[in-house]
Amino acid sequence: MGELRQDLSTRRWVVIASERAKRPHELRSPAPRRDVTAPAWDAGCPFCPGNEEDDLEVLRLPETGPWQVRVVGNRYPALRPGGELIHARDGIFSRIDAVGYHEVLVESPQHNTCSALEEPATVNLLLQTFRRRGSQIAQDARMQQLIFFKNHGRQAGTSLLHPHAQLIALPIVPDELHHRAEVARSYLADTGRCVICDLMQAEIEDGRRMVAGNDHFVAYIPFAAASPFHCWIVPRRHAPSFLHTQDDELHAMSTILHSVLRSLYDKLGDPDFNYVIRSTLNRENGVDANHWYLTIIPRITRAAGFELGTEMFINPVRPEDAAEFLREDVQTTASAAEHE
Amino acid sequence: MGELRQDLSTRRWVVIASERAKRPHELRSPAPRRDVTAPAWDAGCPFCPGNEEDDLEVLRLPETGPWQVRVVGNRYPALRPGGELIHARDGIFSRIDAVGYHEVLVESPQHNTCSALEEPATVNLLLQTFRRRGSQIAQDARMQQLIFFKNHGRQAGTSLLHPHAQLIALPIVPDELHHRAEVARSYLADTGRCVICDLMQAEIEDGRRMVAGNDHFVAYIPFAAASPFHCWIVPRRHAPSFLHTQDDELHAMSTILHSVLRSLYDKLGDPDFNYVIRSTLNRENGVDANHWYLTIIPRITRAAGFELGTEMFINPVRPEDAAEFLREDVQTTASAAEHE
Repeated sequence: MGELRQDLSTRRWVVIASERAKRPHELRSPAPRRDVTAPAWDAGCPFCPGNEEDDLEVLRLPETGPWQVRVVGNRYPALRPGGELIHARDGIFSRIDAVGYHEVLVESPQHNTCSALEEPATVNLLLQTFRRRGSQIAQDARMQQLIFFKNHGRQAGTSLLHPHAQLIALPIVPDELHHRAEVARSYLADTGRCVICDLMQAEIEDGRRMVAGNDHFVAYIPFAAASPFHCWIVPRRHAPSFLHTQDDELHAMSTILHSVLRSLYDKLGDPDFNYVIRSTLNRENGVDANHWYLTIIPRITRAAGFELGTEMFINPVRPEDAAEFLREDVQTTASAAEHE
Repeated sequence: MGELRQDLSTRRWVVIASERAKRPHELRSPAPRRDVTAPAWDAGCPFCPGNEEDDLEVLRLPETGPWQVRVVGNRYPALRPGGELIHARDGIFSRIDAVGYHEVLVESPQHNTCSALEEPATVNLLLQTFRRRGSQIAQDARMQQLIFFKNHGRQAGTSLLHPHAQLIALPIVPDELHHRAEVARSYLADTGRCVICDLMQAEIEDGRRMVAGNDHFVAYIPFAAASPFHCWIVPRRHAPSFLHTQDDELHAMSTILHSVLRSLYDKLGDPDFNYVIRSTLNRENGVDANHWYLTIIPRITRAAGFELGTEMFINPVRPEDAAEFLREDVQTTASAAEHE
């Protein structure tokens, strides 16, 4: 029999559907790996060297010589930094001009690669660039939320192969993130502790859903994972904002993120996926109830009418089975990386 | 410049992205219409006459002679009615056995059809069957939420062509629906009115986003629609539950639902879509703050990292443009239907 499980950090229930259970290996992508079929440089790709649109460039590293990573304005931005932030009201309807930032982080000059195929050092450069550009945008006092994310593959919302991530800054805190912050505040008020710290500790003690770990981070499939192989990478140190991550933490994060992405790539055949860093701005770097983390969401199942109607999800792979499937490979990759 | 708009019934903001705006006709499906390429009967289809799995059947109409509609248990149910409803706790982790109902409503004996290609009377039979089976399940006191929905096409979560809808009954109220009920209660407390009634009235007065209307229902693209052509069909009479809909209301609903689906089919080339009836059980048929409605969600854009990270959506089609595009056709179809 299947079961409903509750994610204590959102209060949402998920259906773990054993009747429609799939063995993890059945979910391997049938498509060929992207890097096999694409060229290393593409004349039609806006992110390949030689095709740069300089007027959109925000920063490049290194600043001289051939670049390794670039941040550019999105050519079709959902939000723009210009303009004034005014709440307008027309009767019952509220609106705000879409003031914000929408930028693309080009991760590599090479067209047909991805984090899984690179060294952890390349992932570290990506994370450093997120932190650097995020800290610059955080100086714009109008901004209330920063989202760092990646879309990999068509099911994940991109048709561009060239490896890239994105960041969006919003002039509001999205209602769902208000809700999560409120859950964290209530839990702190009731127990004196952080709900993410407590969940992480319980996952470590249980052990069945752990995927990888190092001095600064743990990676696991949460007890109430909403979809197959949905994986959290959580800092062991309670901290509300990714922006205040230290260099040694960022290095540890790049190692574990690289390992998990490599395992997904090898075991599931380069699946489409998104990842997102859930973080507050926490401009004063003070103590609060929130605890930032990164979540990786392979796009293997699709939200259908039930999910749209309830915002509950049906996960056909038990988190314990998904973690076991990924675990071996991650450990192999992680120890291989340590030997380099 | 784009704008953020707030849906007052959920408090969520949506990005209406004029920079990445698409003209409605650009979103027409490039795939051939399904009915053109498929046979009227398929030997391998579990829903075609002659292939019925009788042990899964819950009801059929008419009860004798060839059936027009059947309700069957899902072959791979996410939930099952057997068993006891027990909240279990293992340290910090909460779980419940997946006690509930997961059933399929086969809408027609014909394999290669859909509501848009049928008469409104066929849609009426579907809605009557939803109401009938829903009322039976509502007698199970363990159930707290019923969801009626349809997945049409692969992007909407089904690979089965044969026209079918589904219903799921849950032993909990999903957290998001708690949230919406709380928004409705707060609005009622503050204003003495229903938020859905007020939004509907404002849409009727504004007029720019209206798609169709009759004595009992209005159809419109909401001011803060989360995705292109996202359409609400709302009863003019304040009522919390679809289960208590009267026969004449159901008839009016089938006419307007058929018209909107026909317009999507004709104008957008048979797009993949979901629809969902958002309704409470309201077993005592008493007054409460909730107002049921049906929402149609064409699956034209994809949720990507931003949407997964914020649960905000980016809609590249202005609701006013989407409504204008659909409106003409709906009126033509509606008046054609009246002449039959």
